[in-house]
Amino acid sequence: MACIFCDIASGKLPASLVYDRDDFLAFLDKKPLFHGHVLLVPRVHVAAMTDLPGESAAKIFPVAQSIARAVETAMGAEGTFVAINNKVSQSVPHLHMHIVPRKKGDGLKGFFWPRSKYASDVEMDDVAARIRERL
Amino acid sequence: MACIFCDIASGKLPASLVYDRDDFLAFLDKKPLFHGHVLLVPRVHVAAMTDLPGESAAKIFPVAQSIARAVETAMGAEGTFVAINNKVSQSVPHLHMHIVPRKKGDGLKGFFWPRSKYASDVEMDDVAARIRERL
Repeated sequence: MACIFCDIASGKLPASLVYDRDDFLAFLDKKPLFHGHVLLVPRVHVAAMTDLPGESAAKIFPVAQSIARAVETAMGAEGTFVAINNKVSQSVPHLHMHIVPRKKGDGLKGFFWPRSKYASDVEMDDVAARIRERL
Repeated sequence: MACIFCDIASGKLPASLVYDRDDFLAFLDKKPLFHGHVLLVPRVHVAAMTDLPGESAAKIFPVAQSIARAVETAMGAEGTFVAINNKVSQSVPHLHMHIVPRKKGDGLKGFFWPRSKYASDVEMDDVAARIRERL
Protein backbone atom coordinates (compact mmCIF):
# COMPACT_ATOMS: atom_id res chain seq x y z
CA MET A 1 0.00 0.00 0.00
CA ALA A 2 1.48 3.33 -1.07
CA CYS A 3 1.63 5.95 1.68
CA ILE A 4 2.88 9.45 0.90
CA PHE A 5 4.10 10.02 4.46
CA CYS A 6 6.06 6.74 4.41
CA ASP A 7 7.53 7.87 1.09
CA ILE A 8 8.55 11.19 2.64
CA ALA A 9 10.04 9.31 5.63
CA SER A 10 12.11 7.10 3.32
CA GLY A 11 13.25 10.03 1.17
CA LYS A 12 11.38 8.75 -1.88
CA LEU A 13 9.19 11.86 -1.96
CA PRO A 14 10.54 15.37 -1.31
CA ALA A 15 9.25 17.54 1.53
CA SER A 16 10.22 20.73 3.33
CA LEU A 17 11.57 18.96 6.41
CA VAL A 18 11.85 20.81 9.70
CA TYR A 19 12.67 17.80 11.90
CA ASP A 20 14.14 14.40 11.03
CA ARG A 21 15.34 12.55 14.09
CA ASP A 22 14.79 9.41 16.06
CA ASP A 23 11.30 8.05 15.59
CA PHE A 24 9.71 11.12 14.05
CA LEU A 25 9.89 13.55 11.20
CA ALA A 26 8.13 16.83 10.62
CA PHE A 27 7.59 18.82 7.45
CA LEU A 28 5.50 21.67 6.12
CA ASP A 29 1.93 21.01 5.04
CA LYS A 30 1.75 22.02 1.37
CA LYS A 31 -1.72 23.49 1.87
CA PRO A 32 -1.17 25.29 5.15
CA LEU A 33 -3.80 26.95 7.27
CA PHE A 34 -1.05 29.51 7.76
CA HIS A 35 2.55 29.58 6.66
CA GLY A 36 4.59 27.49 9.05
CA HIS A 37 1.87 24.81 9.44
CA VAL A 38 3.84 21.66 10.29
CA LEU A 39 2.87 17.98 10.18
CA LEU A 40 4.60 15.78 12.76
CA VAL A 41 4.53 12.07 11.86
CA PRO A 42 6.02 8.90 13.30
CA ARG A 43 8.49 7.16 10.99
CA VAL A 44 6.63 3.88 11.51
CA HIS A 45 3.35 3.56 9.63
CA VAL A 46 0.43 3.66 12.03
CA ALA A 47 -3.02 4.85 11.06
CA ALA A 48 -4.30 6.68 14.13
CA MET A 49 -3.05 7.92 17.50
CA THR A 50 -4.43 4.87 19.28
CA ASP A 51 -2.14 2.68 17.13
CA LEU A 52 1.13 4.36 18.14
CA PRO A 53 3.21 1.91 20.24
CA GLY A 54 4.07 2.75 23.84
CA GLU A 55 7.66 3.86 23.41
CA SER A 56 6.83 6.28 20.59
CA ALA A 57 3.70 7.41 22.42
CA ALA A 58 5.88 8.58 25.32
CA LYS A 59 8.13 10.52 22.93
CA ILE A 60 5.74 12.28 20.57
CA PHE A 61 4.43 14.98 22.92
CA PRO A 62 7.89 16.26 23.94
CA VAL A 63 8.82 16.41 20.24
CA ALA A 64 5.59 18.30 19.53
CA GLN A 65 6.46 20.76 22.32
CA SER A 66 9.84 21.48 20.71
CA ILE A 67 8.24 21.98 17.32
CA ALA A 68 5.48 24.21 18.74
CA ARG A 69 8.13 26.40 20.38
CA ALA A 70 10.14 26.59 17.15
CA VAL A 71 7.06 27.37 15.05
CA GLU A 72 6.00 30.15 17.42
CA THR A 73 9.44 31.75 17.42
CA ALA A 74 10.16 31.30 13.71
CA MET A 75 6.78 32.60 12.58
CA GLY A 76 6.41 35.35 15.19
CA ALA A 77 3.25 33.62 16.41
CA GLU A 78 1.43 34.15 19.70
CA GLY A 79 0.29 30.56 20.03
CA THR A 80 -0.43 27.35 18.19
CA PHE A 81 -3.31 25.11 17.22
CA VAL A 82 -2.35 21.46 17.56
CA ALA A 83 -4.67 18.78 16.22
CA ILE A 84 -5.00 15.19 15.13
CA ASN A 85 -7.84 13.84 13.02
CA ASN A 86 -8.18 10.15 13.77
CA LYS A 87 -9.90 8.01 11.13
CA VAL A 88 -12.65 10.53 10.38
CA SER A 89 -11.63 13.63 8.34
CA GLN A 90 -8.15 12.12 8.16
CA SER A 91 -6.87 12.75 4.64
CA VAL A 92 -3.73 10.57 4.85
CA PRO A 93 -4.13 7.33 6.85
CA HIS A 94 -0.74 7.72 8.55
CA LEU A 95 -0.88 9.41 11.96
CA HIS A 96 -0.02 13.11 11.68
CA MET A 97 -0.20 15.90 14.21
CA HIS A 98 -0.92 19.37 12.82
CA ILE A 99 1.05 22.16 14.52
CA VAL A 100 -0.23 25.50 13.25
CA PRO A 101 1.01 28.96 14.25
CA ARG A 102 -1.71 31.30 15.51
CA LYS A 103 -1.99 35.04 15.99
CA LYS A 104 -4.76 36.95 17.67
CA GLY A 105 -7.11 38.30 15.03
CA ASP A 106 -5.91 35.83 12.42
CA GLY A 107 -9.53 35.13 11.59
CA LEU A 108 -9.63 31.58 12.89
CA LYS A 109 -11.33 30.33 15.98
CA GLY A 110 -10.27 27.40 18.10
CA PHE A 111 -13.59 25.83 17.38
CA PHE A 112 -15.71 26.74 14.51
CA TRP A 113 -18.62 24.48 15.11
CA PRO A 114 -21.82 25.15 16.94
CA ARG A 115 -21.47 23.75 20.41
CA SER A 116 -24.06 21.26 21.53
CA LYS A 117 -25.60 20.73 24.97
CA TYR A 118 -26.56 17.93 27.33
CA ALA A 119 -30.30 17.85 28.00
CA SER A 120 -29.68 17.41 31.72
CA ASP A 121 -26.99 16.74 34.31
CA VAL A 122 -28.29 13.18 34.48
CA GLU A 123 -27.66 12.67 30.79
CA MET A 124 -24.19 14.18 31.14
CA ASP A 125 -23.33 11.95 34.09
CA ASP A 126 -24.56 8.92 32.15
CA VAL A 127 -22.25 9.72 29.25
CA ALA A 128 -19.34 10.21 31.67
CA ALA A 129 -20.10 6.84 33.28
CA ARG A 130 -20.06 5.08 29.91
CA ILE A 131 -16.59 6.44 29.13
CA ARG A 132 -15.31 5.95 32.69
CA GLU A 133 -16.28 2.28 32.66
CA ARG A 134 -13.90 1.73 29.77
CA LEU A 135 -10.90 3.30 31.49
CA MET B 1 -5.64 33.59 40.38
CA ALA B 2 -8.85 31.53 40.16
CA CYS B 3 -8.73 28.72 37.62
CA ILE B 4 -11.80 26.58 37.01
CA PHE B 5 -9.74 23.56 35.93
CA CYS B 6 -7.61 23.78 39.09
CA ASP B 7 -10.88 23.97 41.06
CA ILE B 8 -12.16 20.84 39.30
CA ALA B 9 -8.81 19.11 40.01
CA SER B 10 -9.05 19.95 43.72
CA GLY B 11 -12.70 18.90 43.94
CA LYS B 12 -13.86 22.45 44.69
CA LEU B 13 -15.94 22.53 41.52
CA PRO B 14 -18.01 19.55 40.31
CA ALA B 15 -17.43 17.92 36.92
CA SER B 16 -18.43 14.76 35.10
CA LEU B 17 -15.11 13.03 35.59
CA VAL B 18 -14.07 10.20 33.30
CA TYR B 19 -10.46 9.88 34.49
CA ASP B 20 -8.80 10.93 37.74
CA ARG B 21 -5.40 9.36 38.18
CA ASP B 22 -1.76 10.19 38.55
CA ASP B 23 -0.92 13.53 37.01
CA PHE B 24 -4.07 13.98 34.95
CA LEU B 25 -7.81 14.22 35.09
CA ALA B 26 -10.40 14.20 32.35
CA PHE B 27 -14.00 15.30 32.37
CA LEU B 28 -16.80 16.13 29.96
CA ASP B 29 -16.89 19.51 28.27
CA LYS B 30 -20.18 21.14 29.28
CA LYS B 31 -20.62 22.59 25.80
CA PRO B 32 -19.58 19.59 23.74
CA LEU B 33 -19.08 19.51 20.01
CA PHE B 34 -20.69 16.10 20.38
CA HIS B 35 -21.75 14.13 23.42
CA GLY B 36 -18.71 12.42 24.90
CA HIS B 37 -16.40 15.40 24.19
CA VAL B 38 -13.71 15.08 26.87
CA LEU B 39 -11.16 17.57 28.20
CA LEU B 40 -7.89 16.04 29.42
CA VAL B 41 -5.95 18.33 31.76
CA PRO B 42 -2.80 18.04 33.84
CA ARG B 43 -3.38 18.36 37.58
CA VAL B 44 -0.60 20.95 37.76
CA HIS B 45 -1.52 24.41 36.47
CA VAL B 46 0.32 25.12 33.23
CA ALA B 47 -0.97 27.49 30.59
CA ALA B 48 0.01 25.88 27.29
CA MET B 49 1.47 22.63 25.99
CA THR B 50 4.96 24.08 25.80
CA ASP B 51 4.80 24.68 29.58
CA LEU B 52 4.13 21.05 30.55
CA PRO B 53 7.21 19.65 32.38
CA GLY B 54 9.13 16.72 30.90
CA GLU B 55 7.81 13.92 33.06
CA SER B 56 4.17 14.83 32.48
CA ALA B 57 4.89 15.50 28.81
CA ALA B 58 5.99 11.88 28.42
CA LYS B 59 2.80 10.65 30.08
CA ILE B 60 0.04 12.74 28.53
CA PHE B 61 -0.10 11.12 25.08
CA PRO B 62 -0.49 7.55 26.40
CA VAL B 63 -3.28 8.79 28.68
CA ALA B 64 -4.89 10.54 25.69
CA GLN B 65 -4.68 7.27 23.73
CA SER B 66 -6.56 5.42 26.48
CA ILE B 67 -9.22 8.10 26.63
CA ALA B 68 -9.58 8.21 22.84
CA ARG B 69 -10.12 4.44 22.79
CA ALA B 70 -12.68 4.66 25.61
CA VAL B 71 -14.52 7.57 23.96
CA GLU B 72 -14.70 5.72 20.64
CA THR B 73 -16.05 2.56 22.23
CA ALA B 74 -18.41 4.24 24.68
CA MET B 75 -19.92 6.57 22.11
CA GLY B 76 -19.94 4.14 19.18
CA ALA B 77 -17.67 6.52 17.31
CA GLU B 78 -15.58 5.79 14.22
CA GLY B 79 -12.76 8.12 15.15
CA THR B 80 -11.78 11.14 17.19
CA PHE B 81 -10.74 14.74 16.77
CA VAL B 82 -7.99 15.62 19.25
CA ALA B 83 -6.93 19.24 19.63
CA ILE B 84 -5.17 21.77 21.82
CA ASN B 85 -5.56 25.52 21.47
CA ASN B 86 -2.42 27.12 22.85
CA LYS B 87 -2.67 30.76 23.97
CA VAL B 88 -4.80 31.88 21.01
CA SER B 89 -8.47 30.79 21.04
CA GLN B 90 -7.79 29.16 24.39
CA SER B 91 -10.81 29.85 26.58
CA VAL B 92 -9.35 28.57 29.88
CA PRO B 93 -5.63 29.32 30.40
CA HIS B 94 -4.93 25.86 31.83
CA LEU B 95 -3.67 23.33 29.27
CA HIS B 96 -6.51 21.12 28.04
CA MET B 97 -6.65 18.56 25.27
CA HIS B 98 -10.01 18.14 23.55
CA ILE B 99 -10.87 14.54 22.69
CA VAL B 100 -14.03 14.52 20.58
CA PRO B 101 -15.82 11.46 19.16
CA ARG B 102 -16.37 11.57 15.41
CA LYS B 103 -18.61 9.71 12.99
CA LYS B 104 -18.58 9.85 9.23
CA GLY B 105 -21.24 12.24 8.05
CA ASP B 106 -21.47 14.01 11.42
CA GLY B 107 -21.33 17.30 9.59
CA LEU B 108 -17.93 18.39 10.84
CA LYS B 109 -14.74 18.54 8.89
CA GLY B 110 -11.27 18.07 10.24
CA PHE B 111 -10.42 21.51 9.03
CA PHE B 112 -12.98 24.08 8.32
CA TRP B 113 -10.76 26.88 7.19
CA PRO B 114 -9.74 27.84 3.71
CA ARG B 115 -6.33 26.40 3.11
CA SER B 116 -3.62 28.80 2.09
CA LYS B 117 -0.71 28.30 -0.31
CA TYR B 118 2.98 29.04 -0.58
CA ALA B 119 3.75 31.34 -3.51
CA SER B 120 6.68 29.13 -4.53
CA ASP B 121 8.83 26.18 -3.46
CA VAL B 122 11.52 28.70 -2.56
CA GLU B 123 9.20 30.48 -0.14
CA MET B 124 8.17 27.14 1.36
CA ASP B 125 11.78 26.04 1.81
CA ASP B 126 12.60 29.37 3.42
CA VAL B 127 9.82 28.91 5.98
CA ALA B 128 11.01 25.36 6.68
CA ALA B 129 14.57 26.62 7.21
CA ARG B 130 13.40 29.25 9.70
CA ILE B 131 11.67 26.58 11.81
CA ARG B 132 14.45 24.01 11.36
CA GLU B 133 17.06 26.46 12.64
CA ARG B 134 15.23 26.59 15.94
CA LEU B 135 15.14 22.83 16.47
